[in-house]
Amino acid sequence: MVKLAVLCSGRGSDLQSIIDAIKAGELQAEISIVLTDKPNVQALTRAESADIKNVCVDRKLFATRAEFEAEILKNLGDVDLVVLAGFMRILSPEFVRKFTGRLMNIHPSLLPSFPGAHAHRDVLAYGVKVSGCTVHFVDEGTDSGPIIMQAAVEVKDDDTEETLSARVLEQEHIIYPRAIQLFVEGRLKIDGRHVVIRD
Amino acid sequence: MVKLAVLCSGRGSDLQSIIDAIKAGELQAEISIVLTDKPNVQALTRAESADIKNVCVDRKLFATRAEFEAEILKNLGDVDLVVLAGFMRILSPEFVRKFTGRLMNIHPSLLPSFPGAHAHRDVLAYGVKVSGCTVHFVDEGTDSGPIIMQAAVEVKDDDTEETLSARVLEQEHIIYPRAIQLFVEGRLKIDGRHVVIRD
Repeated sequence: MVKLAVLCSGRGSDLQSIIDAIKAGELQAEISIVLTDKPNVQALTRAESADIKNVCVDRKLFATRAEFEAEILKNLGDVDLVVLAGFMRILSPEFVRKFTGRLMNIHPSLLPSFPGAHAHRDVLAYGVKVSGCTVHFVDEGTDSGPIIMQAAVEVKDDDTEETLSARVLEQEHIIYPRAIQLFVEGRLKIDGRHVVIRD
Repeated sequence: MVKLAVLCSGRGSDLQSIIDAIKAGELQAEISIVLTDKPNVQALTRAESADIKNVCVDRKLFATRAEFEAEILKNLGDVDLVVLAGFMRILSPEFVRKFTGRLMNIHPSLLPSFPGAHAHRDVLAYGVKVSGCTVHFVDEGTDSGPIIMQAAVEVKDDDTEETLSARVLEQEHIIYPRAIQLFVEGRLKIDGRHVVIRD
């Protein structure tokens, strides 16, 4: 069974979609650990409710990123795929290189438009009429790695960050489990900047 | 009747979609002139076939952009909306300012991703899984003006510039006439970077 580590910082709604897809048999994998960088967040409760091992590696308790990441690595153990699901920390190039081709993220915009931590705010400020979400492998840049899947959603004239975020999350919860299942099936071939989905 | 000037550089397939929408009664406007910057292009033939006044203002015959644009202006006459439909020249800030809120362009990507003259090539090089097209008002930047409508299309792993372009063009031919009709109905309100579509 392919072992996933899911890293979260908050509510864990993407985590929940992965848990649900596994329960429904749509995703053939097991979550070996849920790890957060903050205590008392809902992601931990969701893992607990689903009987999944969970741990908080509180960023505030570590003087440096290197020590923080060393503690994460110790907790991850022998996982096949690291899944970032609303994990609001930038990982070091050293960490990223350890998991080349085995580290995924989901970003709430159609990359390369609107990278960074405030995608919905930036989308609304720019005035685009279509936004969406992107599942990608993580490289050493910010939101710049090879793209696995994307889904588009309409942006409405009266959208707020909350209403837009809710519409995009619906798509996130569909494409993230699917992208992970493609990984599990060995169908994702990285070729430079391209991810080819094999039949 | 709202009078349109349509500026083209080549095949004129977006022009044809506008002609067809007018014939079908979906777009209540008339094209008072089709203008190209190159001789012997298909856009002129399409205009001719539809009995629309057409003229080539050959860029090569003018020493400066100012003289070229002065000749365009002379030909445009008293139009309500200038529609760029595959017009491959950058217009000067002076020209653009003359038509603030009355100058539209269509661009074959989901802006702000992939501006410039080689959108499909850049889309394929980056490896996105979703692209599309954007109708926007023209401002003094390149492909940077307030967005009126966008449509998304899937990018396939085996796409070439030709196959992707064909898929995007289908959407261009739907949204460009619709965006122009919204202008005709007085429903487009520009508010800074935003275009609000009024009921």
